[in-house]
Amino acid sequence: MIPTLKDVQSAVKRIGPYVHRTPVLTSSTIDHRVAATVYFKCENFQRMGAFKMRGATNAILQLSDEERARGVITHSSGNFAAALALAARSLDTHATIVMPSDASPVKKEAVSGYGAKIIECDRTLKSRETVMASERKKSGATFIHPYNDMNVILGNSTAVWEFVREVGNLDVVIAPVGGGGLLAGTALAVNHIDYYTVTIGAEPFGADDAYLSLKTGKIQPSINPKTIADGLRTQLGDKTFPIILQFVSKIIRVEESEIIDAMKFIWERMKIVIEPSSAVAVAALFRNQTEFAKKKIGIILSGGNVNLTSLPF
Amino acid sequence: MIPTLKDVQSAVKRIGPYVHRTPVLTSSTIDHRVAATVYFKCENFQRMGAFKMRGATNAILQLSDEERARGVITHSSGNFAAALALAARSLDTHATIVMPSDASPVKKEAVSGYGAKIIECDRTLKSRETVMASERKKSGATFIHPYNDMNVILGNSTAVWEFVREVGNLDVVIAPVGGGGLLAGTALAVNHIDYYTVTIGAEPFGADDAYLSLKTGKIQPSINPKTIADGLRTQLGDKTFPIILQFVSKIIRVEESEIIDAMKFIWERMKIVIEPSSAVAVAALFRNQTEFAKKKIGIILSGGNVNLTSLPF
Repeated sequence: MIPTLKDVQSAVKRIGPYVHRTPVLTSSTIDHRVAATVYFKCENFQRMGAFKMRGATNAILQLSDEERARGVITHSSGNFAAALALAARSLDTHATIVMPSDASPVKKEAVSGYGAKIIECDRTLKSRETVMASERKKSGATFIHPYNDMNVILGNSTAVWEFVREVGNLDVVIAPVGGGGLLAGTALAVNHIDYYTVTIGAEPFGADDAYLSLKTGKIQPSINPKTIADGLRTQLGDKTFPIILQFVSKIIRVEESEIIDAMKFIWERMKIVIEPSSAVAVAALFRNQTEFAKKKIGIILSGGNVNLTSLPF
Repeated sequence: MIPTLKDVQSAVKRIGPYVHRTPVLTSSTIDHRVAATVYFKCENFQRMGAFKMRGATNAILQLSDEERARGVITHSSGNFAAALALAARSLDTHATIVMPSDASPVKKEAVSGYGAKIIECDRTLKSRETVMASERKKSGATFIHPYNDMNVILGNSTAVWEFVREVGNLDVVIAPVGGGGLLAGTALAVNHIDYYTVTIGAEPFGADDAYLSLKTGKIQPSINPKTIADGLRTQLGDKTFPIILQFVSKIIRVEESEIIDAMKFIWERMKIVIEPSSAVAVAALFRNQTEFAKKKIGIILSGGNVNLTSLPF
């Protein structure tokens, strides 16, 4: 059931021509601060600004010609909406994105800017399901889940594969967790690449359903999540959870103030723009720095899409 | 009088161990926007966040042991203050920085954080000169001008040397111009490396003394400059001007709104933090994009030091 190393490598090869091999950055200021060697995989520099481009691209590339001709559809008001839109355009298919009618205009513009069709729904699960079903019936488009899809997970796993190829084996990899698409992809690839590398998830206290899921051994719902890390408000799925349960050592939870401080620190010291969800992984590093001392740490900076006119600092 | 290619190469070798070889980034969004191939030399990723680190390091490395023992001194309320402070610390000497008493607390903190001694003066030239003279008399420290110093210019020239080594010869290089330390260093190196590369300066309309100096053939004072690009409010010096006059093709002036738009565009699309002075070069590219079409353009992003709590957008 768990994809093999070969599956990861095939995904790397498959999506290679359509995604950026993102740079890895280091910061002596941060190494000094945490007394460790820290590498940052900059998925904020990925096409459309987030790792989601990898999963979306891999999923579309697995469709048959017939399926591609009918297009793809998803529901998302975040990075996956833009990723599927751009991936569809790059791969000569078309995407339909079901978005809540009150989604941010900036995000709607990004999606339609990439040429996707937006269909609005209400903020209820029922409305979304109804709109999705009717649209799929009409177009025959293939539904691609933003994270709970093995091809999406495998696409996401390519980031850490590139990461380790570039910097060598790591003692620890930290990735943020929302729906678990990035964390599951990272953990499964890391497990194949180097059994001794520890994969850790990072999550806000205000949306700690993954922490609770790991603790209870059962997917816990994300009820009324409260965090600035808007990419991490979703809950785990039946594809992501088993992988996380098996391969992730633990989840570190962080406070909102720690997320904002970490985000500001990275902007100021590394001069790169990261979104709050990325900062959650950095905040986890800072919060538990004593356990990371002298280790070789890899942080996956998941994305850099922020609204510059409403920053938290 | 004009340094040779060998001088540039010696500076590259001399400062190598003490500065970052900064990355070069590209953006398909920007290439598409301007219909050209654009490379960005990211001096915002330089140590202390700006190219000034190069000139400061090169100048200190040219001192005798005796001089180094007595320390260095400069006047600056900007990036050069922090650069000289950090370079002095890296090179086992000590820096004294004369700063206006109303300089921003953030900048004072950066300077004292790097271990330099700050001496305050009033915002008049007279006060500054008096304080400088008295301090130099006391300590015997060597004065290093922030830009009007051939060793500083040569240090700055190393950025474009690395740039061309990495991406190959360029049709055009654009750098911002304030006191001219970066533009002079860039132009003289480029002239040696590839005679056919055109060096262009970029300057705000609100501080266009370099444009006027080039036009009149005489250094024009920077009277009451009004621009958000705080690094470009200074005027050319008798070391930087002759080089600029000889080797710079022209200076493109840009409006304040263009600077802010370019800065926001780079933050949003390239996910990197650049300061307004860097954005001036990008704004020049955008403003005159028809003349750059189909060319291979290099932009030097001079620095990334901004106060995140007072952004112009």
